Amino acid sequence: MQQLQEYIQSNKDRYLNELFDWLRIPSISADATYKGDVARAAEFCADRLREAGAENVTIYPTPGHAIVYGDKLINPDLPTVLVYGHYDVQPPDPLDLWESGPFEPVIKKTETHPQGAIFARGSSDDKGQVYMHIKAFEAMMKHDALPCNVKFIIEGEEEIGSPNFRPFVEAHKALLDCNVVLCSDTSIVANDVPSLTTGVRGLAYMEVEVTGPSRDLHSGVYGGGVANPANVLCELIASLLDENRKVTIPGFYDDVQVVGPEERSEMSRIPFNQETYNKNLGIRQELGEEGYSTIERTSIRPTLDVNGIWGGYTGEGTKTVLPAKATAKISMRLVPHQRHEKIYDLVEDHFKKIAPPYVSIKVTRMHGGEPGVTPIDTPEYRAAHLAMEKTFGKSPIPKREGGYIPIVSLFRDVLSVDSILIGFGLDSDALHSPNEHFGLFNYYKGIETIPYFYHYYVDLKKG
Amino acid sequence: MQQLQEYIQSNKDRYLNELFDWLRIPSISADATYKGDVARAAEFCADRLREAGAENVTIYPTPGHAIVYGDKLINPDLPTVLVYGHYDVQPPDPLDLWESGPFEPVIKKTETHPQGAIFARGSSDDKGQVYMHIKAFEAMMKHDALPCNVKFIIEGEEEIGSPNFRPFVEAHKALLDCNVVLCSDTSIVANDVPSLTTGVRGLAYMEVEVTGPSRDLHSGVYGGGVANPANVLCELIASLLDENRKVTIPGFYDDVQVVGPEERSEMSRIPFNQETYNKNLGIRQELGEEGYSTIERTSIRPTLDVNGIWGGYTGEGTKTVLPAKATAKISMRLVPHQRHEKIYDLVEDHFKKIAPPYVSIKVTRMHGGEPGVTPIDTPEYRAAHLAMEKTFGKSPIPKREGGYIPIVSLFRDVLSVDSILIGFGLDSDALHSPNEHFGLFNYYKGIETIPYFYHYYVDLKKG
Repeated sequence: MQQLQEYIQSNKDRYLNELFDWLRIPSISADATYKGDVARAAEFCADRLREAGAENVTIYPTPGHAIVYGDKLINPDLPTVLVYGHYDVQPPDPLDLWESGPFEPVIKKTETHPQGAIFARGSSDDKGQVYMHIKAFEAMMKHDALPCNVKFIIEGEEEIGSPNFRPFVEAHKALLDCNVVLCSDTSIVANDVPSLTTGVRGLAYMEVEVTGPSRDLHSGVYGGGVANPANVLCELIASLLDENRKVTIPGFYDDVQVVGPEERSEMSRIPFNQETYNKNLGIRQELGEEGYSTIERTSIRPTLDVNGIWGGYTGEGTKTVLPAKATAKISMRLVPHQRHEKIYDLVEDHFKKIAPPYVSIKVTRMHGGEPGVTPIDTPEYRAAHLAMEKTFGKSPIPKREGGYIPIVSLFRDVLSVDSILIGFGLDSDALHSPNEHFGLFNYYKGIETIPYFYHYYVDLKKG
Repeated sequence: MQQLQEYIQSNKDRYLNELFDWLRIPSISADATYKGDVARAAEFCADRLREAGAENVTIYPTPGHAIVYGDKLINPDLPTVLVYGHYDVQPPDPLDLWESGPFEPVIKKTETHPQGAIFARGSSDDKGQVYMHIKAFEAMMKHDALPCNVKFIIEGEEEIGSPNFRPFVEAHKALLDCNVVLCSDTSIVANDVPSLTTGVRGLAYMEVEVTGPSRDLHSGVYGGGVANPANVLCELIASLLDENRKVTIPGFYDDVQVVGPEERSEMSRIPFNQETYNKNLGIRQELGEEGYSTIERTSIRPTLDVNGIWGGYTGEGTKTVLPAKATAKISMRLVPHQRHEKIYDLVEDHFKKIAPPYVSIKVTRMHGGEPGVTPIDTPEYRAAHLAMEKTFGKSPIPKREGGYIPIVSLFRDVLSVDSILIGFGLDSDALHSPNEHFGLFNYYKGIETIPYFYHYYVDLKKG
């Protein structure tokens, strides 16, 4: 392990340059025009796996974007770790807010990353964090230090809700058979406050379209005489949250797991400064569900947010028009034990109920996934805990996270295994935003930590 | 007059082809990229005026788009008619809803226009209606039948609120000195129900921008913890209209002229079928201010409408983002005696008052104009009435209109003259919408009617 860690230290520059090459490929899964780039990103991933020593490397086509598989099976009697990640990225827009090209990775120092950070779309979510695993695997192979079997499954549709991933897993249970899933698509509290994610929220993402007149109308001639779909959409959206920022959709909270006082006081121990938080986000004051702290609002409580809205004339100058229609992308973050299909139904029924007679409303289900929680009394979790303790010099805090990692419930359902969410990024790394970045400290710390996980895991399994 | 009318009949094809050439020029004043086309449209107008027999034809530059002037002064003792119109047009978008190119005029038959209509942006608003005046003038010149002095003032910024027109008029009072303004930028009730517009609504058009975090945020990581500007904008907009569709902004109705029962019963005599109206607009049910008919809601009552709204991710697929900002274009139609500057103040104060502490709000004044009313007991109005009676075979109904013709109050303020609003289009001609059109019946009827106006006007002035 000593030599292995020295090897890692001496190869940092190469790790960086290789990742840069991957980050230069705009693998935007949401936009069909980038289909070719997504495919190139998959091939890049497969090649690096092969070079690192993986076998049976295969690019599995799907009705959408391909899934990359590779493995190293050293002994059927030893446990098997399944590494999951994704090589697709979020759309980079709004482009004009990027200080450097989203697909032209550069190193820049920041307040939170004095040693520098990699600025590029996908640097943290999730190419950078996937590449930590590939390089850790390479290091273990080079030093004959891989203590168990490992399988890699890297998909290309995570940012659009993994429409083809569940069917693939269900169709390849034997291929993906394993004892634990290892995934780095989450964050730590701070570089000096390591943490492991024990819960993630689910998602129900919908599009709501309100249609009024069959064409745009002159607002002077018709204004006051017909319903304006943009006004009506605003009124409908406004009605979805009450003055305590609770979702008003009947039944929405029915299945929400009530987190007990013990766990809530545990959570309150996570270092958090509201002032710093607000300063980082550039807001004067926070807002959220009455009766909960910001950490609770963003982890153990469900939400409802407009992700996008548009209608009428949005160009330069003025146009005195009554839009024929207005549309909003609305998504809800879900917590145990909400199920996204049930939430879809509740929302759709609710809109049908509140739809006024003077407009038409169309609700489209875009994508969804279930929330998930990881037990912390298992050898898998314990191994991750020890590995981080080793490399960070302090024990990681178990924490619930707001983001959505659908595979947690997927792998539990289909493969009956738990997922260890051992992410190394920071929430302040601007994931899904302009100027996404990933700290060099975090990137290298991940590569250093992962081999320890394998080491402790196998020990603990031996018992 | 007999010969003159025969001349008009025999030149219809030429009138059409000349207008087509003008309509092919995309003179979109709102979009800077069309500046050159707007200038070309002005030159086209000036050339046609010269050919028709106008003198002193001049293109006056302004800080924005140019103003075209021309006149024919036959005798200082005779009255002078000032013809006002505009050669700029609304942006054509949404382009995909046009059945033929917005700047490729074609003739198509419709239910309301069995003899066919000219389909093109600007066909009715306002190039087509301006060209009626130029051709009527040409006919009178050809037959030595121009009974008084005439001046033409055709601007290129009406669709963006005429920012440079008032300063120009104020600086050229002598040049524009006249007894009456004649303007065709309005509509008749139906081809068999002629009408004259005696009132027009004013406008206060604003942009409201709500800003939350300094960057777009991952809705999973931050969702529930920070105010979402798109949700907040919707809530603010929803609060501007109550359940009776009355504007909730304090003081908004203070200066609204209460229209008496006599005039309201007069208005109720205007042929109107709510079912046909709804069918034409493709709506199941109308909506408007409690206690008023659709005709009243769109003429004697003020309104508040969203003309455009945008924020967050509006592209293909899904993006789980909390937008950093959301924006809406909001405009109010005003009635006598509301003043747009006062309404601007009321709205801005109101937004300052209701702005929550967790977002920032910026209100921008885009453009505004005052409402106007024309007295009907004047020789000017009487002449228009007789002219329409002559060519339509029935007397026109005096009617208030919802649209906004700022020049009515402008010319009243600066030149102390009334404006005769003698439009020939129909409200159903899709003004400001895709597939704008102008009936051939209406185009030719306008050219036939205008010479009679001059004729009767001079007679009535002689007394």
